[in-house]
Amino acid sequence: MTPLKNDRFLRALQRQPVDMTPVWMMRQAGRYLPEYRETRNRAGDFLTLCQTPELACEVTLQPLARFPLDAAILFSDILTIPDAMGLGLYFSEGEGPCFEKPVRTKASINNLCVPDPNEALRYVMDAVSLIRRELDGQVPLIGFSGSPWTLATYMVEGGTTKTFSHVKGLMFEQPQTMHTLLDTLAQAVTAYLNAQIAAGAQAVMIFDTWGGVLTTRDYLDFSLHYMQQIVENLTREYDGQPVPVILFTKDGNEWLENIAATGCDAVGLDWKLPIGTARARIGDKVALQGNMDPCVLYASKERIRDEVATILASFGGGNGHIFNLGHGIHPQVDPEHVGAFIEAVHTLSRAYHAPI
Amino acid sequence: MTPLKNDRFLRALQRQPVDMTPVWMMRQAGRYLPEYRETRNRAGDFLTLCQTPELACEVTLQPLARFPLDAAILFSDILTIPDAMGLGLYFSEGEGPCFEKPVRTKASINNLCVPDPNEALRYVMDAVSLIRRELDGQVPLIGFSGSPWTLATYMVEGGTTKTFSHVKGLMFEQPQTMHTLLDTLAQAVTAYLNAQIAAGAQAVMIFDTWGGVLTTRDYLDFSLHYMQQIVENLTREYDGQPVPVILFTKDGNEWLENIAATGCDAVGLDWKLPIGTARARIGDKVALQGNMDPCVLYASKERIRDEVATILASFGGGNGHIFNLGHGIHPQVDPEHVGAFIEAVHTLSRAYHAPI
Repeated sequence: MTPLKNDRFLRALQRQPVDMTPVWMMRQAGRYLPEYRETRNRAGDFLTLCQTPELACEVTLQPLARFPLDAAILFSDILTIPDAMGLGLYFSEGEGPCFEKPVRTKASINNLCVPDPNEALRYVMDAVSLIRRELDGQVPLIGFSGSPWTLATYMVEGGTTKTFSHVKGLMFEQPQTMHTLLDTLAQAVTAYLNAQIAAGAQAVMIFDTWGGVLTTRDYLDFSLHYMQQIVENLTREYDGQPVPVILFTKDGNEWLENIAATGCDAVGLDWKLPIGTARARIGDKVALQGNMDPCVLYASKERIRDEVATILASFGGGNGHIFNLGHGIHPQVDPEHVGAFIEAVHTLSRAYHAPI
Repeated sequence: MTPLKNDRFLRALQRQPVDMTPVWMMRQAGRYLPEYRETRNRAGDFLTLCQTPELACEVTLQPLARFPLDAAILFSDILTIPDAMGLGLYFSEGEGPCFEKPVRTKASINNLCVPDPNEALRYVMDAVSLIRRELDGQVPLIGFSGSPWTLATYMVEGGTTKTFSHVKGLMFEQPQTMHTLLDTLAQAVTAYLNAQIAAGAQAVMIFDTWGGVLTTRDYLDFSLHYMQQIVENLTREYDGQPVPVILFTKDGNEWLENIAATGCDAVGLDWKLPIGTARARIGDKVALQGNMDPCVLYASKERIRDEVATILASFGGGNGHIFNLGHGIHPQVDPEHVGAFIEAVHTLSRAYHAPI
C-alpha cells in the first residue's frame, strides 16, 4: 500500500503532535451532496448503493474531492450484520430501516449465528479494499459498526422506535436472553471490524446510537460491557501500524469516564458538553472527537467560524483533538457552508499547534 | 374550597416529612386507559377533548378512580399558548401537532402578542376550576405549561422535528430575534400559570421537552434563563398556601445544579441518572421527582416491584422525593401493571419514612 500522505487523523487519535487539528464529519458522504444524490438515484435504492462496492467507493470518495477532509469513512449501513444474520433488512419510504423477521423470543435469539464477514459481508470487505486502493494514501480510511445494543434495538423492535418498548421489555423481563443476543452480536461485531481492518480500514469506530436511552446501570451492563468486549478482541495493530478505535455513545456524556476506561483510543462526543469539560474529565486517557452542533451549519459562514473558534478554544492547546460534528450532517445543509467549516478548523487550529 | 385530604405530594415538594413517598405519573390520564380512549372517541378529536372543560375534567379524574395516586394533573396540551397566539394548532394523523402558521421571521415574531389567559385560554381555567371542584380535596391538582424554548421549537418548526433545523438556524443566525420570541413566551407562560394558580392549581410544572437538544451554553441562554424568569414571577403563595413549582428538562442531567439554582421547589428527573446521584448533587436545595424508566412497566409485576425498591433505596431516607416515571407513560402499558407500580411505591416506601 502507498504510505499515507496525510496522517493527521491517526496522529491525533494517538495524541501525537499535528500541524493543525484534523477534521472529518459523520455522514460526510451523504444527501447534502448533489453528487451523492445522483449516485443514489443511479443505484436505484439505498441497499444497492451499500452492497455494490464500486458505488460505495464512489460515494465514500465524493466529499474528499470537494473538501480537504483528513479522513474517509466507509460508506455502509449500520444494519449490515443483522441483515447477514438473515433478518431481512429493507428500507420503507419515510420509515427508515425495517426487518422482515425481528427477533423477540429466546428460541429465535438462540438460533442466531455469527456471520462470517468474508462470506455474507464480503461486499463490505470488497468496498474497503477498493476504497483503500482508490484513496492511494491520500487520507486514512475509517471502518465502522453499530454497537451490540444499538443493533439489538433494531433487531428486537423490527425497525426504528421512539419508545424502545420491545427491546427494553425483553431486557427487563428476560435479561439472560438479552445478554445472549448481545454476546452473539459482540462476537459478530468483533469479527466484522477485524475483517474490515484486514481489508484495509486504518481506524474503526463503534456507533452506539441508542445507548443513551438506558439508565446508568443498564448502559453499563447491556451496552458498554459489550463494547469493551469488542475493544479487547480487536486487531489493534495491523501491518506494523496501530489501528485506533473510537467509541461514540450518543447522549452518553454521563458515562465518559466509563467509556474512556474500556481501553479505546478515542471517545466521540455529541455537542451537549463543552469539549473542554470532557477533556478535563478524560483527556488524559483518550483522544476526543467532536463536537459542533450540526445545526450550526445552517448559520452564516461567519457564525460557523465563530463556533469553530469557540470549540478550539474550549479544547485548548496540546494533542488529542479530532474535530467533528456532534452527530451526522443533515441532508439540508449547503455544501458551501461545509467548505467554510473545514477551512475554519484548519486555519484557526494552527495557533494551537506548533509547526511540525 | 375543601381542605386537602391527602397532602403528601405538597409536603414532599417542600421537603417535609410524609408517611410514604407520594407518587403520580406523567401522562397518567392517557391512552393506556380504556376509559380515556372511550372519552377521546366520544370527543371526536384531541383538541375538542382539551378544549371542553367537562371532558378535560373527566379524563383528569379517570386514573384517580383506578389508582391511589397522590396528585392529579390538569389534562391539556402543551401547545395551548401558541394556539392562543393565533398560530392555528391542529393534529394530523401520525405526525403529531402542527401549526398552520409557523413563525420564522423577525416581523412575525415581533407581531406576536401575549394572550390574556382568561380570554383566549378561558377553557383551560374553566377546566382547572371544575377539576378542583370535582376533586373535592381528594388530592392536589397540578397545573402545567411547556417551557418557552419548547414552545418556540414547535412554533418555528411548525410541528415536531428530529433535526431542529429551523429553530436552531434562527437561534444561531438571529439570536436577538430568538430572544424576543422567548421573552414573549416567558411572559405568556407566566401569565398562563398564574391564571391556573388563581383558578385552583396547587402546584405547577414546566415541561422543557426540548432543552436537552442544546449545548450547555445555549441551554443556559435560550432555555433555562427564561424558565428562571418565569419562576421569579410566579405566584408562589395563594390563598395562604405555598404553590410549589417543578422544573423538568428531558435529557437535562448535565445541568441539574443550574436548574436547582433557579429557585424552583423541585426538579423532575428522567431515568438516566440514579436518583441518589441527583440527590447528592442538588438534594439539599430542591425536592426530586422521578425517575423510573417507563419501559419497566412492560415487565412483570415482580420486576416492577424490584425496580421501585432500587429507586427508593437509591434516594434513601429523609424527605423530598416524589416518585414518578422519568417520562410519560406509554399507551401500550397494561393498567394492571400501573396498579402494581403505585402499590409498590406506597408499600415499600413506608420503611423510609417515620409514621406521622
